[in-house]
Amino acid sequence: MKIAVLPGDGIGPEIVAQAVKVLNALNIGIEMEEAPIGGAGYEAAGDPLPEATLALAKSSDAVLLGAVGDWKYDKLERHLRPERGLLRIRKELNLFANLRPALLYPELASASTLKPEVVAGLDIMIVRELTGDIYFGQPRGISTLENGEREGINTMRYSESEIRRIAHVAFGIAMKRNKKVCSVDKANVLETTELWRQVMIEVAKEYPEVELSHMYVDNAAMQLIRAPKQFDVMVTGNIFGDILSDEASMLTGSIGMLPSASLDQNNKGMYEPSHGSAPDIAGKDIANPLATILSAAMMLRYSFNDEANATRIENAVKKALAEGYRTADIYTDGCRKVGCAAMGDAVVAAL
Amino acid sequence: MKIAVLPGDGIGPEIVAQAVKVLNALNIGIEMEEAPIGGAGYEAAGDPLPEATLALAKSSDAVLLGAVGDWKYDKLERHLRPERGLLRIRKELNLFANLRPALLYPELASASTLKPEVVAGLDIMIVRELTGDIYFGQPRGISTLENGEREGINTMRYSESEIRRIAHVAFGIAMKRNKKVCSVDKANVLETTELWRQVMIEVAKEYPEVELSHMYVDNAAMQLIRAPKQFDVMVTGNIFGDILSDEASMLTGSIGMLPSASLDQNNKGMYEPSHGSAPDIAGKDIANPLATILSAAMMLRYSFNDEANATRIENAVKKALAEGYRTADIYTDGCRKVGCAAMGDAVVAAL
Ligand SMILES: CC(C)[C@H](C(=O)O)[C@@H](O)C(=O)O
Ligand SMILES: CC(C)[C@H](C(=O)O)[C@@H](O)C(=O)O
Repeated sequence: MKIAVLPGDGIGPEIVAQAVKVLNALNIGIEMEEAPIGGAGYEAAGDPLPEATLALAKSSDAVLLGAVGDWKYDKLERHLRPERGLLRIRKELNLFANLRPALLYPELASASTLKPEVVAGLDIMIVRELTGDIYFGQPRGISTLENGEREGINTMRYSESEIRRIAHVAFGIAMKRNKKVCSVDKANVLETTELWRQVMIEVAKEYPEVELSHMYVDNAAMQLIRAPKQFDVMVTGNIFGDILSDEASMLTGSIGMLPSASLDQNNKGMYEPSHGSAPDIAGKDIANPLATILSAAMMLRYSFNDEANATRIENAVKKALAEGYRTADIYTDGCRKVGCAAMGDAVVAAL
Repeated sequence: MKIAVLPGDGIGPEIVAQAVKVLNALNIGIEMEEAPIGGAGYEAAGDPLPEATLALAKSSDAVLLGAVGDWKYDKLERHLRPERGLLRIRKELNLFANLRPALLYPELASASTLKPEVVAGLDIMIVRELTGDIYFGQPRGISTLENGEREGINTMRYSESEIRRIAHVAFGIAMKRNKKVCSVDKANVLETTELWRQVMIEVAKEYPEVELSHMYVDNAAMQLIRAPKQFDVMVTGNIFGDILSDEASMLTGSIGMLPSASLDQNNKGMYEPSHGSAPDIAGKDIANPLATILSAAMMLRYSFNDEANATRIENAVKKALAEGYRTADIYTDGCRKVGCAAMGDAVVAAL
C-alpha cells in the first residue's frame, strides 16, 4: 500500500502530519511519499499541480491531502492559483465521487447553531459528483460582445453515463446505511438536471430495497435547516453538491471534525478534510487535525478495504473526545485544551 | 393605480383574497383586475401564461401574484407546466431584481430551528438577479451524443450590463439600510462570476459609503447558518439566489411570513409570497396569508412610492401578531388559532 501525501498550504502540513502519525502507529506497512500541491506546488515548481506530484499520485494507491489555498496567491493568474491544482488532480485521477459525511458527535452537539433536538444524531452522507457539471463544462470564459460589453459564460453539462456512475455510488452506499437516497436537482428549470432525474429513476430500479426521492435544490437548502434528520444519503451534481455539502457540514457546528473522500471507478481515492486551509492560523499548532485523521480512516475503508483499522481510528477519535481533549475550535469549558500535535498524540494514545 | 391580480394555484386564490381585502380596506383607489396564471392559466387557456394575462400584466402598474404549481401538472410537457408561466412573466416584464427579505418577527422567534441568540433580530435583504444566468441561457436542452448516450446542457451567462443594473439595485437598497453589501459568487471556479465580481467592484466605487465584501457561494451557505446576522444586503445571480434566499428564509422558521418583490428598471413590479402553492392544504382556509399581505405592502413601497401605507400594513401585521392571532403554521400554545380569512380580517381590523 502506497500513499501520496500532499500537505498543501496553510494548516495543511500540520494537520497532515498528525494523520501520518496515526497511520504509522497502526503499523500496517503503509508506504508514504510527500509532494507539494496548491500554493506549495507553485512555490516549488511554478505549478499548483507539479508534474512530479501528479505522477506520484497516479502511481500511488491513494492520496492524503491537507488543504490548498492562501490569500497571498489571490493575485496570480487563474491557472496558477492553488484551487486549480485541486480541480486538476480531481479530473486527472477521475475522482468523480465525492463523499462528504455530515455527522454530529454527541460530545460536540452544543457547537451547532441549531437547536439540539433538531440535530441530535445527525448522520447524512452527501454524495457529490466531482468531475463534471459547470466546473469543467466547455465553452467557458469571458469574451467581448458585439456591442463592446463583456460577457461571462460557463456550461453545465452531464452525460447519462456520468450520472449513472454517481447514482450507483449513492445507491451502493445507501445499501450499507438506511437505504434512502434523496437526489437533488433543479429539474423544473434545468434540462441537464431533468436528465439527471431520469437516470436516477432508471438506476434506482437496480436497487429495489432503496427508497429514492427527489428534491429541488432550493427546497433541499431549506429542508437541511428545517429537518436535517430526514436525510440519509443525498446525491447531487458538482455545483449543488459544493453548496449543500458545506451547508450540511455547518449544521454540525464543527467542520473541524468532518473528513471527505473522492473516489474513482476502482475505489482509488483522495482523502482530505472538508474544511479549508485556514492560512490565518497556519503554523501555530492550534488547528484541529481530527478531520484529516478521520479522512485517513476513510482511506483505509474505501481504498484499502480495511474496515477494522478504519473503525479503530474512528473509535480512537471518539475516545480522545470522550477523554475531554479539544482543540480551540471545539473547546468548551471544563475540557482539556490541546494543540494540533497534542491532539494527534491523544488519538495515537487512544488507538 | 392599476394592479393585475394573479391568484395562481393551490393556496394562491385564498391568500391573494386576503391581500386584496387589505388593499381595499386602505381605500386609496386601487383598481384591480384578476387573471389566471400557472396551472390555472393552463386550465383556462391551455397556457401557463395566457396572452390575456400577459397583456393585463403589461398594462398594469404592478402585479400581485399568489403562487403557481400543483403536483397534478407534473406530467405535462415542460412548456405547459405552471413554473413556465412564472419564468416567462418574469422575463417578459423584465423583472430582473428580486428582493427577498429574511426577517425574523420577535413573536415567532421560537419557530426557528436555530438557537434564539443566533437569529434574534435577523434582518437580511437578499437581492437576486432574476432574468439571466443559467435560468435563461442558451444553448440548453437534452441531446444525443455520437456514442448514442444522452447529454444535458445548460448555459450560465451574464453580461456586464446585466450585472451592473442588479449591482445598482443592491447598493441603492444598502444605502437605505446598514450600508453593507455582500456579493456572492464562485469566482474561483466560474469565469461568469469572476466577471460578476469585477463589475461589483466597479459599481461599488459609485457608492463610497457602502462596504462591499465578496463570498464564495459554498461559504455563504455555511455563514448563513454559522452567523447569519453578519449580513445586511446579499446580492447574487439567479441560481445561487434561488438557493440562498430559500436557505435564508428558512432561518426564520416561518416562511409563511416572508414577502418578495421582483422589479424592472422603472420599479414596476410583481409581488408574491416567498413560499409555494402548497396544494396539500389548498381550499382548507388554513394557509397563512401574511406573506402575501406583506407583499402588497412591498408593492405600495416600491411600485407606488407610498411608504406611509406600506408601513401601515406592516404595522397592522405586527399588531395582529402581538394580539396573538396565528395561523396553523406559526401557532404556539397560548395563541389564538385562526384560519386564512380570519387572519386577513385581523389585519384589516388592526389597520
Ligand atoms: C476550492 C474549491 C475549488 C473547491 C470546490 O469548489 O470544489 C472547494 O470548495 C471544495 O468543495 O472542495
Ligand atoms: C418555481 C421556480 C421556477 C422558482 C425559481 O426557481 O425561480 C422558485 O423556486 C422561486 O424561487 O421563485
